[in-house]
Amino acid sequence: MGSVANLQTWQEKVDWARAKRDASLAKVEPKLTGIPDAADSLPLSSQDLPKTVLTEREIEITEQYGIVQLLGLLRERKITVEEVTRAFLRRAALAQVATNCLTELLWDQAIARAKHLDSLPEPRGALFGLPISTKEHHGMVSAASANVTTSASFVAWVGKPHEGPNLLYDTFWNEGCVFFARTTQPQTIMHLETESNVYGRTVNPYNRELSSGGSSGGESALLGMRGSILGVGGDIGGSIRCPAAHVGIYGFKPSIKRIGTAGFRNVGAGKETIQGCPGPMTVDRDGLELFMKVALAAKPWRIEPSLTVKEWTPHKFTKPLKIAVQWWDGVVKPHPPMIRALREVADACGKAGMEVVDWDCTGLDHQKGWDILSALYWPDGGKEVLGLLKESGEPILPLTKFIIHEQPTVKEMTQHELWKLCVERDAYRTRYAQAWSQTASNEDGSGEVDVILCPPSFGAATPHGQSRYWGYTAHWNLLDYPAAVFPVTTVDPALDAKDLDYVPKNEQDKFVYDMYSPEKFKDAPVSLQVVGRRQEEEKVLAALGEIERAMGRG
Amino acid sequence: MGSVANLQTWQEKVDWARAKRDASLAKVEPKLTGIPDAADSLPLSSQDLPKTVLTEREIEITEQYGIVQLLGLLRERKITVEEVTRAFLRRAALAQVATNCLTELLWDQAIARAKHLDSLPEPRGALFGLPISTKEHHGMVSAASANVTTSASFVAWVGKPHEGPNLLYDTFWNEGCVFFARTTQPQTIMHLETESNVYGRTVNPYNRELSSGGSSGGESALLGMRGSILGVGGDIGGSIRCPAAHVGIYGFKPSIKRIGTAGFRNVGAGKETIQGCPGPMTVDRDGLELFMKVALAAKPWRIEPSLTVKEWTPHKFTKPLKIAVQWWDGVVKPHPPMIRALREVADACGKAGMEVVDWDCTGLDHQKGWDILSALYWPDGGKEVLGLLKESGEPILPLTKFIIHEQPTVKEMTQHELWKLCVERDAYRTRYAQAWSQTASNEDGSGEVDVILCPPSFGAATPHGQSRYWGYTAHWNLLDYPAAVFPVTTVDPALDAKDLDYVPKNEQDKFVYDMYSPEKFKDAPVSLQVVGRRQEEEKVLAALGEIERAMGRG
Repeated sequence: MGSVANLQTWQEKVDWARAKRDASLAKVEPKLTGIPDAADSLPLSSQDLPKTVLTEREIEITEQYGIVQLLGLLRERKITVEEVTRAFLRRAALAQVATNCLTELLWDQAIARAKHLDSLPEPRGALFGLPISTKEHHGMVSAASANVTTSASFVAWVGKPHEGPNLLYDTFWNEGCVFFARTTQPQTIMHLETESNVYGRTVNPYNRELSSGGSSGGESALLGMRGSILGVGGDIGGSIRCPAAHVGIYGFKPSIKRIGTAGFRNVGAGKETIQGCPGPMTVDRDGLELFMKVALAAKPWRIEPSLTVKEWTPHKFTKPLKIAVQWWDGVVKPHPPMIRALREVADACGKAGMEVVDWDCTGLDHQKGWDILSALYWPDGGKEVLGLLKESGEPILPLTKFIIHEQPTVKEMTQHELWKLCVERDAYRTRYAQAWSQTASNEDGSGEVDVILCPPSFGAATPHGQSRYWGYTAHWNLLDYPAAVFPVTTVDPALDAKDLDYVPKNEQDKFVYDMYSPEKFKDAPVSLQVVGRRQEEEKVLAALGEIERAMGRG
Repeated sequence: MGSVANLQTWQEKVDWARAKRDASLAKVEPKLTGIPDAADSLPLSSQDLPKTVLTEREIEITEQYGIVQLLGLLRERKITVEEVTRAFLRRAALAQVATNCLTELLWDQAIARAKHLDSLPEPRGALFGLPISTKEHHGMVSAASANVTTSASFVAWVGKPHEGPNLLYDTFWNEGCVFFARTTQPQTIMHLETESNVYGRTVNPYNRELSSGGSSGGESALLGMRGSILGVGGDIGGSIRCPAAHVGIYGFKPSIKRIGTAGFRNVGAGKETIQGCPGPMTVDRDGLELFMKVALAAKPWRIEPSLTVKEWTPHKFTKPLKIAVQWWDGVVKPHPPMIRALREVADACGKAGMEVVDWDCTGLDHQKGWDILSALYWPDGGKEVLGLLKESGEPILPLTKFIIHEQPTVKEMTQHELWKLCVERDAYRTRYAQAWSQTASNEDGSGEVDVILCPPSFGAATPHGQSRYWGYTAHWNLLDYPAAVFPVTTVDPALDAKDLDYVPKNEQDKFVYDMYSPEKFKDAPVSLQVVGRRQEEEKVLAALGEIERAMGRG
């Protein structure tokens, strides 16, 4: 490939990036056969594609095992790392054809790594042989020792080397994982969908007319195709939880500073008003806890000193959970399948002996929260990011316009305006925390609500271009509360009829209401979200376990 | 007293504030006798004044007991709260005459509170009956239910009510303490001395020609006179540690967000770049831990959600301490008594079996740290604070000019300039953390330096107006490392001769070198500082205990 430095137009740079991606996919051996050539002729759902393309053994390896089980087989050497790696590499390549979720397949590096691990006299590390997929803007200079693409979806950064180690990825590498695929994210990494000028649009593996969510929507599409078993996303407004929810996998957003972001390539470096946090996206619940445990056992705060000094400390409940159900956020009414999912899970929890109460947040004014948050995303008025788009000349996509130009709160602030808004943010957080504390029956906090059960989105995956309401995920970023999403059901037109009598309360509510018809979303996964108080990551995952057990899951 | 609203000039407002203070002091009963009338005729050291003014019993109560011991007597009702309260009230009034450390004596409120506590059928609370003094800009609306002064030393705020509860003080109140005195701070609360237009200058109780330090220099003067046993300060550049060190008491600055600042009155609300943290100033080491334990047992994060979710978790060393001695910071050479104190304590630690190594930080460029920090104190170029001074017309004091106008780094920044500087700050912190981690002999961190032993200032208390080098305390604010100061020795001209051969390395070094002559500082307390890694508050206090035991203290 030629150097990107000589390219003139943004389109040429895009061609260069896609050629690099395609070259990485061309390595796949044996070639994928049995799939239609063009996207036009692909089925609406990609869920049946693997059967016609992959071998039985590949399907067994990629579908039959949970993360812990697969790690057990690898550690006992009942299966080689290379066989596992090759199976996921081929399935990831198929996921790319089906959903356009990859920026790069790390074929050579992954196989070399697998062979190395297989050659060790003893298996070593908590992630020995586990394939891990990674979001493209997460630099991984030292871990993979590979010249991976890290353009963060900005055409201006295509082909521009990114430096600096990624502590999280180095940790996983030291624990024996295999990095094998890099995944797409949207322009600016600030959409709840995944479309960029560099790689185009990523689609939902359950329905190509729906989004895989965003911004970690390459990961979700890949995991939703079971082309990966554990992926790394990041979340500043829903970017782990929204895509995980849209494909029916598990996702977890910790409070900020629990997991580090060193080595990530992004705009807004040094901005402190609202921050994101990396987290796991996985095919099962165990994967969430494994990710956290391994990441924190390395004591990352010794190297990245802004991180919270706290190893993973599993939480044990000593009495039945007290769950508050947020049926809606007071701004936008969820679609019928989401309300059904809430009811089903709340009923199961009640039957299992938990205390289930309502989380009525109308008095807490979530809209006000969004007004604060949307302004704090861009204290420079979006100047930096818009400048970067202008630098290459790439077009500004509609959802970029939505989150910058169409938010009336966004403007370049003076320091004093910024301070004032941070005071408002802190006052809002305080009001919310106090409302939570007031659920306690005793002064010491016992009898307090343990977790909030709520939608991770107004509905199932949205049709492309329509993810224009962030409230169900972003609110917990504003508050910095940890939150996990988990799959519950799928849209069933027989159960999820449109409520024809509902009168929308405002414009956003109307936009979301008008979007719904059961047929449009048929069979799309519907997920829920468990939210805990700030820095109570361990409690959230423990609560998720209790809730799933109440649902009859192991 | 008339309303402040009708006053025209800043001097009239000052007179109003001082009259309010004086009226509170006029309540003292019996009146103080046996002291010279005017400050001019006061002795250089105030340490012998109590003997001629207070009763033997008052001296016993205020001098003879440590905090834990006094609490024991109170809890067992071997002494009444009222007797203790009256003794400290009178001694505080004497401290005011001697050092000008008070903004208000809470005579009526404290005695009413004491009577109430004495009337309870059972003693109640971890701080039952303990007198606590508080820095003036700490609002305490709900706790004391008193209309206390909270002008934060700004003439513009004199007489202007301050609202909002102070969670920390409410906690102490709920645990049974008695608030009895409010103490001075300097203009802007950003000097390492204590002088304001509102209350004038606070002086050192060991030598009135020296400063009591700042910004919590009212507390230090009061505690240095034993007019209080436990005070609350705050620290963003040394404001607890510098004054504590200058009067030979104990002080502790936690990492930010361990103790809350809700209810404080100050400029810079909403500024996140560098933040302060409240902490204890006490007559003994036990008081430091008591403060932290009680403050955190209340789980303040349930109400003030930005706080770190972590109760006090005492640290136990399982092997001898590894201490790194920072003999100087590479910028300004400490005065001879400070170097002697370091040597004495390092020797004692070595003899007690600890591993003592050098902390050579010349490669870590502390000057660069100051350049970042001094800019981050005022991202608005000082506009807000200077505007507040202008509003009343009060003169800008020299040490205000020093920390704003004379710092070449200070300027009003755009958001992008601020982000860039925060990135530099984080990179600096990372370099420092990595240097610390590299002291470990093993990858898991064992064998790592536990704490740094270093000066809390270039020397003993400075002559007034000369606290123009913050490096020895402020550096740990930049890094957000917890740090405790403790008394070690006093300046002894026989031991602490000036090094006449020393050639200063730079202008600041020369300024500090030229300041020293042993006679000027004779008998002034000399203290040291123990610094730990970020968020390792418990470890720092445990290390301080080990070090003091090595010094032969109980």
